[in-house]
Amino acid sequence: MNVDRDRLRADIEANAEHGEIAIEAGRGRTVLTGTKANRSARETLVERMEDADLDVTVDAVGNIAGTWTPDSADPDAAPVAAGSHVDSVPEGGIFDGPLGVYAALEAVRAMQEADVEPARPVVVVSFTEEEGQRFADGLLGSSVAVGERTVEEALAIQDDDGITLGEALDEIGFRGEGRLDASAWDAWYELHVEQDTRLEREGVPVGVVTTITGITHCEVEVLGEANHAGATPMDERTDALAAASEVVLDVEAAANDVVDQESETAVGTVGSLDVSPNATNVVPGKIEMGVDIRDIDYQSMQTIVEATQASLSVVEQSRGVETSFERPFDLEPTPMSEELRAGAHCAGEEAGIETMDIHSGAAHDTMHVADVTDASLLFAPSVDGISHNPLEWTEWEDCAKATRVMAGAMAGAAGADLSL
Amino acid sequence: MNVDRDRLRADIEANAEHGEIAIEAGRGRTVLTGTKANRSARETLVERMEDADLDVTVDAVGNIAGTWTPDSADPDAAPVAAGSHVDSVPEGGIFDGPLGVYAALEAVRAMQEADVEPARPVVVVSFTEEEGQRFADGLLGSSVAVGERTVEEALAIQDDDGITLGEALDEIGFRGEGRLDASAWDAWYELHVEQDTRLEREGVPVGVVTTITGITHCEVEVLGEANHAGATPMDERTDALAAASEVVLDVEAAANDVVDQESETAVGTVGSLDVSPNATNVVPGKIEMGVDIRDIDYQSMQTIVEATQASLSVVEQSRGVETSFERPFDLEPTPMSEELRAGAHCAGEEAGIETMDIHSGAAHDTMHVADVTDASLLFAPSVDGISHNPLEWTEWEDCAKATRVMAGAMAGAAGADLSL
Repeated sequence: MNVDRDRLRADIEANAEHGEIAIEAGRGRTVLTGTKANRSARETLVERMEDADLDVTVDAVGNIAGTWTPDSADPDAAPVAAGSHVDSVPEGGIFDGPLGVYAALEAVRAMQEADVEPARPVVVVSFTEEEGQRFADGLLGSSVAVGERTVEEALAIQDDDGITLGEALDEIGFRGEGRLDASAWDAWYELHVEQDTRLEREGVPVGVVTTITGITHCEVEVLGEANHAGATPMDERTDALAAASEVVLDVEAAANDVVDQESETAVGTVGSLDVSPNATNVVPGKIEMGVDIRDIDYQSMQTIVEATQASLSVVEQSRGVETSFERPFDLEPTPMSEELRAGAHCAGEEAGIETMDIHSGAAHDTMHVADVTDASLLFAPSVDGISHNPLEWTEWEDCAKATRVMAGAMAGAAGADLSL
Repeated sequence: MNVDRDRLRADIEANAEHGEIAIEAGRGRTVLTGTKANRSARETLVERMEDADLDVTVDAVGNIAGTWTPDSADPDAAPVAAGSHVDSVPEGGIFDGPLGVYAALEAVRAMQEADVEPARPVVVVSFTEEEGQRFADGLLGSSVAVGERTVEEALAIQDDDGITLGEALDEIGFRGEGRLDASAWDAWYELHVEQDTRLEREGVPVGVVTTITGITHCEVEVLGEANHAGATPMDERTDALAAASEVVLDVEAAANDVVDQESETAVGTVGSLDVSPNATNVVPGKIEMGVDIRDIDYQSMQTIVEATQASLSVVEQSRGVETSFERPFDLEPTPMSEELRAGAHCAGEEAGIETMDIHSGAAHDTMHVADVTDASLLFAPSVDGISHNPLEWTEWEDCAKATRVMAGAMAGAAGADLSL
């Protein structure tokens, strides 16, 4: 079974033209859900799926599925599914998401050309709003596909301008019907860029994920008193930004402590911070921060969350600010299917491509899918570990090798079931 | 000579309706230069000036001047001028600026009603864009009136959307002709709210400013590397926000040190901070900060500036970020005219209103005017010292008392010259 590296590359490069941004170094794109760039990226994907004779459906929240039902397959058998997403963060890279979607499509084409005879249908999937940059917190399409959110709940979610997901999907013509049901799948595969340097350091082209990190988002507000920066003496201020700066450093220190003492995979980040009124000559009155905390060990995440809350108590006492803390998003770590992991390593061996166990520090739609069926996540190496950035890069040869391993694993999962 | 407290109050309250914001506590307004709110505030002012028989002119940068030339005055004598500004910071208070403009107008009306016979004309002035919230750094209209900027330079300044001051003034019909020339004035007075609590603490209704603080604005950029918040281990990050947080705290600490050791009037503030890309799940890649540093002692300002630069060097070394530092705005401390200060205290004594010496921690148009003629700045008490905030408040009785002192001082300056 041969994966066509150049065909895969052409697909990913064509996808990269949607939402492409002008940038000095690297290649970047901004593809938020429901935008023109998202529409054209979706349209291109549907064309490519149809070129491969897939039967394409779009569900009510915009999840796209292309199904291949070869003559060898029982059309009523639970299918093997694979895919990822085509939306991006603002000024993101060209591999995060599209690699997984087009690798799944390439795997199907490779199986078709090799006359592999799967006993099950194979489905290529692109989930809606994985990045959560416009609607909710991320993994939105897969949350509906696993029944964690209803279609109605998802469609009613609003962006910052009050536009609902439903309206945004209508706008681009990708509000379909029904609900893609991940629990009907026999197995699920996602190939993604690693977004870290472990594969690169080890010189291994394919990672087989053992556990996907847990992830918590905390929303923190610090209230001081906005006042004239010139006329307010230092000892009469309640500076919300100075207080928030202590919290930023405390979150970082807490994560470093956990890495040293409890779990080396833990991370804690203050990724967003908004100052109000944000004028050079006004003492800041209000800060809103978004904190991201992750680990494959849930207790270590709790440690960092508690340290964040303790830091807020300290600045309330020492600086007289008021603070609030919410935790709107909390996913525990997700172990991958041992059977599918074994199958992926086996597919690597058969193809002569080295694989290694690895954990995922990033959230992926696979976290949701793993709740309802056997799931597997594969990684391709990221150059310098850079991601969510136009400098994100994976060598085309590595893309092809990881796709080859996934294709073999998918064929095995779809064919092995024939013998049951 | 009687100042009419209720007439002054009616003028300030009428002005407060322009750009009024919906707010739970206090009373706020947003009046940026060249907006609809700015237009209507200016139109109301012109009407009030004409009601008082002033001859109104608008210069090429929108500075408004209303001249009273009584029969007693030599129309060619250098006039006594007084005023302030009507623009505001976003969500600012109702006294900062308008008090000085309408107090100057009320002083003229009081002189008219008391049949005071000035030997010089009296000019009521409203300068354009004092707050610097839309165009440049502040004190824009007065910078042109003293010849520090040319009319052409000022009109070409662009806001964040690329609209020039000239276009913005055309839009509201307040781009006039010629140039208001502050060097032609014999003396200048500005009444302003204190924006601090010293008058309130001392129970004195009028402050006579000895020196206006020097002021520097620094623009600081911190460049790290934007990266995935989940997939980038703690020890592989170059987090621009964590680095910037150290700088925020270092600026605060440096100002506190200077207050303790060199000059108790010094202040240092990081008032604005913008994070890029500013997403919860992305390690911040770039921070832009605006730093405001002020004191009546220029050397103390230098100390805080140098500490800020030293902090940037430290985070470059310790965190691997790149930084840049610019200082686009730098005004040295400005002493007020001793003769006019004495005249103001004298006017207070004559009216039975207590006055006290005080320094100004805020920049005012008077800083510019003092470069070209004798200038005096008076303060009225700010409740709780709050300013640049809808909770900014000055009791109407205090507004009237301070206006009465300024009216006496202006009458003295305009009349005393008759005897020369």
